[in-house]
Amino acid sequence: MSVTAATGFVASGLSTGIRRAAPDLAIVRSLAPAVGAAVWTTNRVQAAPVVVSRRHLERAEPQAVVVNSGVANAATGARGIEDAERTAAEAAALLGLQADEVLVLSTGVIGIPLPIERLLAGLRPGVAALSPDGGASAAEAILTTDQCPKQALEECDGFVVGGMAKGAGMIHPRLATMLAIATTDYPLGPDEAGLLLRAAVDASFNRVSVDGECSTNDAVVLLANGATGIDRTPARDAELASALEAVCSALARQIVEDGEGATVLLEIEVDGASTTAEAEAIARRIATSPLVKTAAFGRDPNWGRVLAAAGSAPWNGGFARLDPDALTVGFDGTVVFAGGSPTGLTPVLDGTAVKIELDLGLGTGSASYLASDLTYDYVRLNAEYTT
Amino acid sequence: MSVTAATGFVASGLSTGIRRAAPDLAIVRSLAPAVGAAVWTTNRVQAAPVVVSRRHLERAEPQAVVVNSGVANAATGARGIEDAERTAAEAAALLGLQADEVLVLSTGVIGIPLPIERLLAGLRPGVAALSPDGGASAAEAILTTDQCPKQALEECDGFVVGGMAKGAGMIHPRLATMLAIATTDYPLGPDEAGLLLRAAVDASFNRVSVDGECSTNDAVVLLANGATGIDRTPARDAELASALEAVCSALARQIVEDGEGATVLLEIEVDGASTTAEAEAIARRIATSPLVKTAAFGRDPNWGRVLAAAGSAPWNGGFARLDPDALTVGFDGTVVFAGGSPTGLTPVLDGTAVKIELDLGLGTGSASYLASDLTYDYVRLNAEYTT
Repeated sequence: MSVTAATGFVASGLSTGIRRAAPDLAIVRSLAPAVGAAVWTTNRVQAAPVVVSRRHLERAEPQAVVVNSGVANAATGARGIEDAERTAAEAAALLGLQADEVLVLSTGVIGIPLPIERLLAGLRPGVAALSPDGGASAAEAILTTDQCPKQALEECDGFVVGGMAKGAGMIHPRLATMLAIATTDYPLGPDEAGLLLRAAVDASFNRVSVDGECSTNDAVVLLANGATGIDRTPARDAELASALEAVCSALARQIVEDGEGATVLLEIEVDGASTTAEAEAIARRIATSPLVKTAAFGRDPNWGRVLAAAGSAPWNGGFARLDPDALTVGFDGTVVFAGGSPTGLTPVLDGTAVKIELDLGLGTGSASYLASDLTYDYVRLNAEYTT
Repeated sequence: MSVTAATGFVASGLSTGIRRAAPDLAIVRSLAPAVGAAVWTTNRVQAAPVVVSRRHLERAEPQAVVVNSGVANAATGARGIEDAERTAAEAAALLGLQADEVLVLSTGVIGIPLPIERLLAGLRPGVAALSPDGGASAAEAILTTDQCPKQALEECDGFVVGGMAKGAGMIHPRLATMLAIATTDYPLGPDEAGLLLRAAVDASFNRVSVDGECSTNDAVVLLANGATGIDRTPARDAELASALEAVCSALARQIVEDGEGATVLLEIEVDGASTTAEAEAIARRIATSPLVKTAAFGRDPNWGRVLAAAGSAPWNGGFARLDPDALTVGFDGTVVFAGGSPTGLTPVLDGTAVKIELDLGLGTGSASYLASDLTYDYVRLNAEYTT
């Protein structure tokens, strides 16, 4: 189950020494002509590989993706752009492609130049190792502070959608929020690929938060090669859209479950808001509240902090509308606050997930969010992991 | 140096048992007729004392403030309102005032009813203990997770401005961000008191962040009684405005220095933004970034995280404008990033404060912010401090 589950995709993962002995170079390639789409970080500071890959995607359909981990090649100036271009060009030469047909992605420490000689030296063995069985190796090679690889697969009627992702830190919903690559052997046109990917990302990666940060390197890439030879039908199109969203959602969930230092998965469900936009604003505010997240770490059904966060959700230049007397707050199905006062019930939060349910009682707007808790290990990882 | 430094103010602080043996009830009173003003939390969820005190302030000039710590009386429904009204009414009776002339403030755990009998029982000894020497006791009695009391004093030509505050957690700039009471014996009209307090709060409490949270109980109150008998002059008005801002700034700084779990004070200075609003948005984003704050805990001059935060500062429905090639980032006076690339310099951050200097090179907008770092102790305090 991975980026190579779809017919006509090969991948590899190996170590070039950038991350010492850990695998740090992944290559994914479609053997049949593919169309591609991507969603990029909206951060004003965009890493060199993002700048270069956006340009490539404007000029050509991508046939391969080269990912390195360990160094983000972000805030590296003209040299960073040159390194990203060189990586794409040399990989393209080895793959028999045009440079513009190769996307490059990087993840890791910001502001350090790419160890470009190591990376270039790894391309030849990386290309030689490309295999339909290489998906798992590729999924390993894109990790940084992640605890485990993240893969997902949806098997449909005559085609599949597979994917891999990396996450852990700087995870926040503003378009793409980490690295993810999805592949399918369903035949899509380039316009549909972009539309479907955007919709799938909005419903998945844009609804998760580890720490409210938005990285300089976030990217989600979709490659579709139609290699199974089936025809497009409206029913299959719908199945593909659904499968792509399922793969993105599964990867997004794995990213939060593996959030830096995370011990519990927070599932935040906001209903009854005046508008969907306000439901999202409130869900996001709760998902990024340090006080809610430390309470979750302490397994404390602290609805007071949920209320305080909900009441200060930025929206439309002010705060999203709510009325404390009209809303209810629940944890794992137990209503703890209603009618302006606590109910006196105290749920025991002993699972690996905690569901926070907020019903505003105002309208029909609803939104859900996934988040991790804020723990000692989050602080340790980020106070020690350095430039 | 405290709320009783100004002529004609008395205060007291004592324990009613709400916080076990710790002092938890403070009373501040002006003996001469005073005018008053307040800035309140903008959270959509407003604590009962905030609701009641706003109403009182619309009807009368406040002559006394009653503060309890330990229980916030927030999200407590109709009973909470009744408890706040009763506190004001009984205090007023003991003080020889109308109920509307008393403001009530609470700070502590959300969602628990006020131990109203304890609180009411404490009012009589609290009023009996009112004294010109009671400022320090009052400053002790308003604390919760604070490590130390926060007081400030400015001595001017013929009058003084004094103040006390409490902070520690849920500190975030959206109007009032904690409890603070300032007093002066300068003769102010009620309109001026409100205008000056708003300006002072904008320049001080609204520029600090411990954890990006906005509490349900935040309030800053100013009482001015003119008890020294001096006349108002334009020069003295200016001196008063400056002194009030200095007192608020000193209290705001003490709040951040005593932020929950804080080990270092972050001073964030953003210059060269396209507009002042964007400078503020960027400074606030850096001040609330978990990655910047954990890096500060690790004494890591991590300009990459500063850049990533700055590039994702919410502004005007998108992100505040910046150009990575035009900006410089410095730590404690050492420029570490300029012209799109790191300079290679690595400052050693060994003080009790770290200054982060960001010059965007775009315009003349500038803003400064104070923040605390994100530490193990922040997590410990908030995972263990429970409803």
